[in-house]
Order: sequence, then C-alpha cells, then structure tokens
Amino acid sequence: MAVAVAGKRVGQATVAFERPPALVGAASVVGPREGRGPLGREFDVVKDDDLLGEASWEKAEARMLVEACRTALRKANLQAHDVDYLLAGDLLNQLVSASCAARDLSLPYLGLFGACATIVEALALAAMLIDGGFARFVLAASSSHHNAAERQFRFPTEFATQRPPTAQWTVTAAAAIVVAAEGAGPVLTHATVGRVVDMGAQDVNDMGAAMAPAAADTVWQHLRDLGRQPRDCGLILSGDLGHHGARLARELLGRTGVDIGSAYADCGALVFGAEQDAHAGGSGSGCAAAVFASHVLPRLQRGELDAALVVGTGALFSPTVVQQGETIPCVAHAVAVRGPGAYGAGPGVGPERGDARA
Amino acid sequence: MAVAVAGKRVGQATVAFERPPALVGAASVVGPREGRGPLGREFDVVKDDDLLGEASWEKAEARMLVEACRTALRKANLQAHDVDYLLAGDLLNQLVSASCAARDLSLPYLGLFGACATIVEALALAAMLIDGGFARFVLAASSSHHNAAERQFRFPTEFATQRPPTAQWTVTAAAAIVVAAEGAGPVLTHATVGRVVDMGAQDVNDMGAAMAPAAADTVWQHLRDLGRQPRDCGLILSGDLGHHGARLARELLGRTGVDIGSAYADCGALVFGAEQDAHAGGSGSGCAAAVFASHVLPRLQRGELDAALVVGTGALFSPTVVQQGETIPCVAHAVAVRGPGAYGAGPGVGPERGDARA
Repeated sequence: MAVAVAGKRVGQATVAFERPPALVGAASVVGPREGRGPLGREFDVVKDDDLLGEASWEKAEARMLVEACRTALRKANLQAHDVDYLLAGDLLNQLVSASCAARDLSLPYLGLFGACATIVEALALAAMLIDGGFARFVLAASSSHHNAAERQFRFPTEFATQRPPTAQWTVTAAAAIVVAAEGAGPVLTHATVGRVVDMGAQDVNDMGAAMAPAAADTVWQHLRDLGRQPRDCGLILSGDLGHHGARLARELLGRTGVDIGSAYADCGALVFGAEQDAHAGGSGSGCAAAVFASHVLPRLQRGELDAALVVGTGALFSPTVVQQGETIPCVAHAVAVRGPGAYGAGPGVGPERGDARA
Repeated sequence: MAVAVAGKRVGQATVAFERPPALVGAASVVGPREGRGPLGREFDVVKDDDLLGEASWEKAEARMLVEACRTALRKANLQAHDVDYLLAGDLLNQLVSASCAARDLSLPYLGLFGACATIVEALALAAMLIDGGFARFVLAASSSHHNAAERQFRFPTEFATQRPPTAQWTVTAAAAIVVAAEGAGPVLTHATVGRVVDMGAQDVNDMGAAMAPAAADTVWQHLRDLGRQPRDCGLILSGDLGHHGARLARELLGRTGVDIGSAYADCGALVFGAEQDAHAGGSGSGCAAAVFASHVLPRLQRGELDAALVVGTGALFSPTVVQQGETIPCVAHAVAVRGPGAYGAGPGVGPERGDARA
C-alpha cells in the first residue's frame, strides 16, 4: 500500500504549507528600558515599572506574558476558549513564566524551549499543527525578563558587574501571536527547522559569536531547499544575534557565496539605541518575539514589506554546564512570512486604537 | 471560500490521526538502581556506573540520551539522517541534556519541556507532524538523571536529606522512540493535550498529589472526547504519579463517576521494588519514557496488551518560584496506542538480540 507521506517537505529541512496559516493577531508588552528604545512607540504596552507591582521579577514576567496573550486574542477578536493550543516558552529554569501563564489562561499547553529562537519554534509548530488539520487557532508566545534572566544566568544584579562590549542585554518583554487556519493577516508560507551547531564558543558574554554559525546554517539551508536568493525573502530578520553576531552571520554567509545584502536586520540590534549602553544589543526569548510582533508584522500588514524570513537563534546553554567547561550548543529556526493573503489585511496586527500604555 | 480546518479534532481537546503513525523502534538506557528494579531485565542497556565515566552527572545524562536515540534508530533499521526531527527534553535547566544530545546527533531539533510528561508531549507532536505530512520519521526522546536533578531541584546530594514517604525518586534513565509514517509496530491513534491544572499544592516532596488532578482532568477529557469507557483504553498508564499520586488520581476520577478499574498502572510505581526504599516511587522525564518504551511497547507488540492510554504528567515548577511561595502548575497529556497495525509487528520494539548490557 502506497502512503503519501511528508508531501509538504521541500529539500532537506524545509516544509511548505499547503494553506499558509494567517497571523491574525499579535501583541507585545515591554519594560521601561525597551519602551525608551527606538521601537518604543510600536509596542502595545510599555510598563513603567519592571516589577509590575509584583513581589518578584519572575512573577512580573509571567504577568507580562499573560497580558500579551490576552491582548493578542482581543486584537484577533477571539476568546481564550477559541484557542486550541498555547505553544510557549521562556528563558527561566523549567519555563516557569510560560507554565504560570498557561495556568492563568487555562489553555491546552505545550512548553517549548529554544532560548531566543522560542517564538520561531512556536510559530513553525503552530503552522504545522494548523496546516496538518489539528487546530484552528494556536497562540505562539514567549517572554524574557532582564533581571530574572541576569541573576539566573550570570551574576546577582546587585553586583553591577561590568559587561564586555560583546555582551547582549536580555530584554524585558513578552509577545504573543495568534496563528489561524484562516483570517485576515500576513501568512506563514514555509518553515525551516535547524540543527544544533556548536563551533566551540564558551563565552556567555559573546552569544552573538556562538549563535552566528547556527543562523548562517539555517539561512543557507532555507535558501538551498527553496532555490531562493536572499532578495526573494524580503527582509531577513535574525533574532537575536546583536550587532556583533549579525556582522559575523553576514560574513559567514558571504563566505558560502550568499550575500544577504542590505535587507538584513537583527532584532537585538534594533531594540536599543546606541545611547542606551546595551553593548552588542538585546537578546532573550521576548526580544525577537516583541520586535517581530510589533515592528515587522505591522509593516507586512501595511504593505511596507512584501515578505520576511524570520530567523530565531538560540544559545542552548545552562550556567551549570558552562561552568563544567561545556561549549555552547546553538540552534536557529526560520519561518517565511509574506503580506496579507487571500483574506486581506484585517485588524489584528498593528496598534490597537485606544491602547492602554500602562 | 470554504476551508476544511481542524478536521482531525474530536471533542474539545483530542485529535484523531487519519493514518495512525507507527512506533517502529524504541530503546532505553538506565542507571544501576533502575537496573536492579523489577523492570531491570526489560531495559535495553543498564549502566553499572551512573557517571558513565564522565566528569559530571549532566554529561552522563546527555550521553545516555544519545545512546538511547542511536539504539532506537538501529532497532528501527534507520540512520540518523533519515530522521526529520528530534523532539526531546529533560528536567535540567535550559534542557541541556537534550540540547547536547541534539548536537551530537546533528538532527533538526525542537526542544520541549513538560517535566515527566515530556515524552508524551513529544509523541503527540511527532504524530501530528507525521500525520500532517511534514515528516516521515520523528525521534521522540527524553531523559533524567537522579543526581543531576536532585542537586538542581532539592538539596546537594551530599546532604543525604531525609525524604518524606510522599517523595518520589528521580530515575536515571533515557529513552527514545522512533515514530514513523509507516512501518511495523504499534500505532498511535489519538492524542489529548492537557491544560495546566494547579490545585494549590506547594510541596515538592509530594508531587504525586500536585499532579493527580491534572492526570484525572486529562483522562476524563480523553474519555469524554471519544465517548470511551476506561475498558476501551486497554492499559491506562500514568507517568509519573507514584504510589501516592496514583491512588489520588484513581479517587479523583472515581468522584466523577469514572472507574479506571484494575487496568491502571503508573510508571513511577512500576520502576522500583518495595525493597528499594524509593518511597512513593520513581519520577523524572526518563521514567515514563523508559517504562513505556521498554515495558509497555513490547507487550503491545507481542499482543499481550491490545491498547494503552499513556498519560504523561508533569509538575512544572522551578525551585526559584517555589521558594517565592508559588504553587505548582501541573499538566498531563495523553496518547492512545494500539497493537501493531496494517504493517504487522516488526523488529524495532522489544529487546535486541545480542544487546550490550554495559
């Protein structure tokens, strides 16, 4: 008996969606420092206190994630009970922000970990579950909180440790994107799931250099699988390599003959201004998520961009194994998104009217 | 334009596979204490040293996971490059065992976290990716290591802290299961993804009580969605509630009018003998994975069992938030498996001939 299998695979690592799912709602909630950055006015909610009145940064992060999910659902004119799955993750040990948010939202929940690549892992899986016929609406979400991450991964924040120029600044941000079988909004056409690449980097204050080879590998694989050139992708958006890692990724791709040209940007490089002293730029599961949800998706929606290739990059280390001398495994996943499909632009992406900028 | 969406959903939270994927290979690698337990002879590899000659328990865990993956692939007569996705996770911070294993195997990798429910989360997603047409072969895998988990979640192992009778013992085990679009082996027919349930438990030495409501919720939902009775499910296998949690889950289901009867077992209750002083039983991402892969799948294969409903249960806490007074969010996911389908039994499940019991 002949069984038609894996008919949606293209090349070695890419899948093409038969009915490209639509991104029908998106929202971001960020901290005060992110709100003062160059994208500050584009985020849905900017908090003026990174504790949100909670007793801990961890609780504050979970609350931001819930607020991002609820705002994205409202913008998509959906209720929580319309959502078939919440796919979410964060940087904290055992993904406690995502788990606590899933509890508060009371949604069927699948926890994901891809460090800064988590939102792209979630979008890729969301599109597969929808195009596969298993869901109508999936909420893809991720978050990070600077202070919670800093004390977990590096030093107690009270140390005020000096940071080298290659260090990235974990952003305080949460974002959620509603992926739907049909509806108005930009559509997700392809996904490329990356392999773990480890070139021997060990410096947690230079994650850009650790992740750049994984980013280059996945972009190269995506282009090869689809027979595409970089110009066919629209904006190539990595998240989050920072200034330093983005330069390295461009150089690595150049050595393979791929010139990613001027239509390349990195979420970590976009989120803070030079005057904000964020060194190599932003990072964290909330960074790529918030920049994509609030800066890039609205431009796709408005027709200012035709398409984007969103390349989530993750440094998959824990302090324990780095202290044991382990090198840093890194991964990158990519999703290709293009402007609104057959159903038109719709109201769910871009700023809400009457936003509360709390 | 009418779009057929979510045609594989049944009821509120369950999906039915059109072409039930087959479990064509499975393998487990366990530590010495697990090898001395009642299932010791059923695991593929029993290590006589829980460090495996490595410098740390974390490195040992990653190596066990790689060995489980390679053994499962060999039993399925596959090479690593045949695998479209590795879906894997563990209990350690930032899933370092799974990430390091993914690096060593060089497979496209999606990191998952569901605590002890990770293997069922992986199996459910694997089946969706395959039945959705996105993959031919997916490797679902998870692991845990007693000593690595103990020092991360509770106390330095050197403390030799006294454990209360409700405490579970994190097993040292890794297991991997090859899910395939076609092939010989038991088949995965349905999946039910659970919501996070939190009844206010805060005691990390009584995770069975914390997780039992989530397990009962998902079993109840699965039965309701499919109009099934417990006797239709074959063996109902939870993992890992332990002795104490399993009693509670049975009682909670009984109060809703569901009698899960005698065909109910829990992986945590099966893995250690009463003389092994493991208190309420085993737990950990490797426990349900190894017991299902090496104890239950072979019985399905041999026809000793017609079917099983595997209910992975996860306590989604981190020590940080428990110390902050947070209660423990829990989740349970279920997959329904039945004996070999149209392609017959096949060689991939059950002990290999000439196994190395290193």
